[in-house]
Amino acid sequence: MIDPRVASGLRDVPPAVMIPRERMLASFRETFAGFGFVPIETPHIERMEVLTGKGAGSDEVLRQIFEVTNKGGTPGELALRFDLTVPLARFVAKHVEELGVPFKRYAIGSVFRGERPAKGRFREFTQCDFDTVGTESAVADAETAQVIHAALSSAGVPAFTIKINNRKVLDGLLDSLGLSDRTGAVLRALDKIDKIGRAGVVKELVGERDSRPASPTTAMAPDMTWKEDPDLVDAGEPTSHIRQDAKVGAHLTADQAARVLDFVEAGKGRAGVLAKAEADLGSHPRAAEGIANLRSILDLLDASGVPQDRLAIDLGLARGLDYYTGVVFETNVDGWERFGSVSSGGRYDDLASLFTSRKLPGVGASIGLDRLLALMDEAGWLKGTSATAPVLVANFPGGDVNTYARLASRLRKAGIGAELYPDAIAIGKQMGYGSSRGHKFAVIVGPDEQGKEVFNLRDLATRQERKAIPWSDLESAVAGALNGASS
Amino acid sequence: MIDPRVASGLRDVPPAVMIPRERMLASFRETFAGFGFVPIETPHIERMEVLTGKGAGSDEVLRQIFEVTNKGGTPGELALRFDLTVPLARFVAKHVEELGVPFKRYAIGSVFRGERPAKGRFREFTQCDFDTVGTESAVADAETAQVIHAALSSAGVPAFTIKINNRKVLDGLLDSLGLSDRTGAVLRALDKIDKIGRAGVVKELVGERDSRPASPTTAMAPDMTWKEDPDLVDAGEPTSHIRQDAKVGAHLTADQAARVLDFVEAGKGRAGVLAKAEADLGSHPRAAEGIANLRSILDLLDASGVPQDRLAIDLGLARGLDYYTGVVFETNVDGWERFGSVSSGGRYDDLASLFTSRKLPGVGASIGLDRLLALMDEAGWLKGTSATAPVLVANFPGGDVNTYARLASRLRKAGIGAELYPDAIAIGKQMGYGSSRGHKFAVIVGPDEQGKEVFNLRDLATRQERKAIPWSDLESAVAGALNGASS
Repeated sequence: MIDPRVASGLRDVPPAVMIPRERMLASFRETFAGFGFVPIETPHIERMEVLTGKGAGSDEVLRQIFEVTNKGGTPGELALRFDLTVPLARFVAKHVEELGVPFKRYAIGSVFRGERPAKGRFREFTQCDFDTVGTESAVADAETAQVIHAALSSAGVPAFTIKINNRKVLDGLLDSLGLSDRTGAVLRALDKIDKIGRAGVVKELVGERDSRPASPTTAMAPDMTWKEDPDLVDAGEPTSHIRQDAKVGAHLTADQAARVLDFVEAGKGRAGVLAKAEADLGSHPRAAEGIANLRSILDLLDASGVPQDRLAIDLGLARGLDYYTGVVFETNVDGWERFGSVSSGGRYDDLASLFTSRKLPGVGASIGLDRLLALMDEAGWLKGTSATAPVLVANFPGGDVNTYARLASRLRKAGIGAELYPDAIAIGKQMGYGSSRGHKFAVIVGPDEQGKEVFNLRDLATRQERKAIPWSDLESAVAGALNGASS
Repeated sequence: MIDPRVASGLRDVPPAVMIPRERMLASFRETFAGFGFVPIETPHIERMEVLTGKGAGSDEVLRQIFEVTNKGGTPGELALRFDLTVPLARFVAKHVEELGVPFKRYAIGSVFRGERPAKGRFREFTQCDFDTVGTESAVADAETAQVIHAALSSAGVPAFTIKINNRKVLDGLLDSLGLSDRTGAVLRALDKIDKIGRAGVVKELVGERDSRPASPTTAMAPDMTWKEDPDLVDAGEPTSHIRQDAKVGAHLTADQAARVLDFVEAGKGRAGVLAKAEADLGSHPRAAEGIANLRSILDLLDASGVPQDRLAIDLGLARGLDYYTGVVFETNVDGWERFGSVSSGGRYDDLASLFTSRKLPGVGASIGLDRLLALMDEAGWLKGTSATAPVLVANFPGGDVNTYARLASRLRKAGIGAELYPDAIAIGKQMGYGSSRGHKFAVIVGPDEQGKEVFNLRDLATRQERKAIPWSDLESAVAGALNGASS
């Protein structure tokens, strides 16, 4: 006998989780489509060189890749994708001529990372990405936040905040302080402010400068990979986050650190934040560009009817170091910030530079499906049930099973899911099955009812039964009961 | 620069294929749910011993498995699943105590087989399975055909035939002819009747007997694996098909072969077929059981409103050798039989015997999603479009982009998908984009219209434009135009 366990770090997803998950994915697909995003699918298996790029020296990435080989294949040639962004870059590079730009795609699928297994961290998880490739327009920037808003709203998240920044503002700030060469270290410290507080960030900003060189091939800073950052596991960060510059200390003076933190801490909220940033940095061309972009985005989101209290400017938000070049987003569920970001993304200058010389700028975001489901489950917001059909048609012992099949079929034709119990076992057991699965009502026709062409309708929660309803009223009686039960 | 090609035998699925595919999958999910099937998901990666079972000597299976290893992992321990049936068996064995039976699940996902790449044959493809585990009831048998009927109908397949047989009838026939020891060879020959005709089958039935033993560990008959049988590649056959008994010649007398073929050829259709089978074989207990099961199924399908002309008894239908033990199904699209079966399945005695001593009988089927899509595409039945949103809102150069965002947002709130073109480029280029993507209408507000709070509605197919519609009529005018266009 073989042990039916799954491999370490993997999991089965049971119906009670899959049902709300499928519902959420269906609403995401509808949201994406409503904005003109189209679905694509790429293989789970990619050529190794596509995944490892030219920075194949990045041991951390290579170490967590799952290699794939079949008999007769060459070891080291194939691997499982670890995100949906590298496959998007390859797809766009390959197909951009026939597809044209702008190209707006969404993709939902499994990705694989050979991490050390831990609670809530899996070696296979689902990513849910949407991107607009081939435009630099602020319309696409604003739309990204709008899609996050629409998707989370349609999924039933009651209150959340989309934090927005533009990396050019931070670049301008650091340049104006003469710290351009220390951007990486400063942003890395700032990204931790929610975890270690102002004092911790100051300490890190004025700390010793690391002597290691910032070479891109020795680039993996262990504390900045998705491996260490739970944000980057579930929320589906674009890959390039794992190609950071080296860990180099910032080595700021106390005064510089204070000025950075003052700017960033005053730069949260909405009213007045951009005006203050303009007063401080408006004369710096790059910062001014970033501020203007943020203004356009807020205006477009207002025009699109996204409520102001769902949006917040956060001038300290960096979201990784080298990848994003313009607007960045991060989304927290209000009151559930400890779960981390449930959706994040931003604008990049050049998506597919590994595969094509054609420059393809774009903007996009990822929704952390698994994390969002876990959060909503804990918050009690999932209207979950383990049954997909609300009605159980009983298979009464000694009754006519063809009648039951006919009644179940009539319910389905009326758009009401109905499950006919397959075996004519004791009726109590059938009712127990229905209650435990989450069916709402049972349609029962015993031999007596059969002769009179009537049925009993049992509420499986209250155990109350409405007796002797004529078969002709089947659809209306059941629909009425279901409406009553859900209201 | 890295070549952006996919690995051999794999493929990208572009929007024009994904859009009808997603639509079809959504209708399948709704169908499954309407019958009370619940979704599950299992990992793409399974432990090797789960996939290879105790018959690990089957070289053909092992040769086509994709092994998976990460750094630090033990080679040979993990592999990609090659179907959804083995994972179902493992899942049920592991979770049956908490889930209870009957357990009705559906699963949709990628499976992987390292076949030699060929046209229309891929190393990764989608399976779409539904099964009812833990019951021997004919209700579940009939429901399997009913779900096939509902799913294909909802997908828009105009006419198809679900062929039904019960393996016990064939068993009874062969037993009554004294041929029980040659069941495998006879069924293998019969399965080819559509390809090689009666004469070919007779030739094979009377041919020389192969001397190789029918040991289960040397079981792989090359001509019966999914590798050679295109049916078994796309339509998603249960795995156990690939554990056939050895290729042993049937060695029938000419008279025996004629009697088998006479029975089988007379056993097609509906009216009278079962009565004739009963007259011929009614005294054989196993055959009588099979015939009674087929009668129950037809009665239940009648009661359920499945039209008779969608069903046909085919007493020669075997669908593989050792796996199915009761009812079997195979479905062809009328007029498109050359594509092979688009859905097939049947009843099995014991699903999870590799993993548990608990006996779990069941019945289920698989829908060949990719094959069905290819067929429907060739038949012109896919109402395909490469745009998910029917309306393109133009971004008129020099106009107010916030107005466009507001109008697009209003359309979406009215349930009408609307894409706002991100860049304010020449309007002709934007219209070209809309036409080529399959958008139906464009909403255009130039600087003149902006001042007057009106818009023009352009039909992208006919290039006709309705001018100066007030903004207040936006939703009704666009909805009206879309209704007119689709009728």
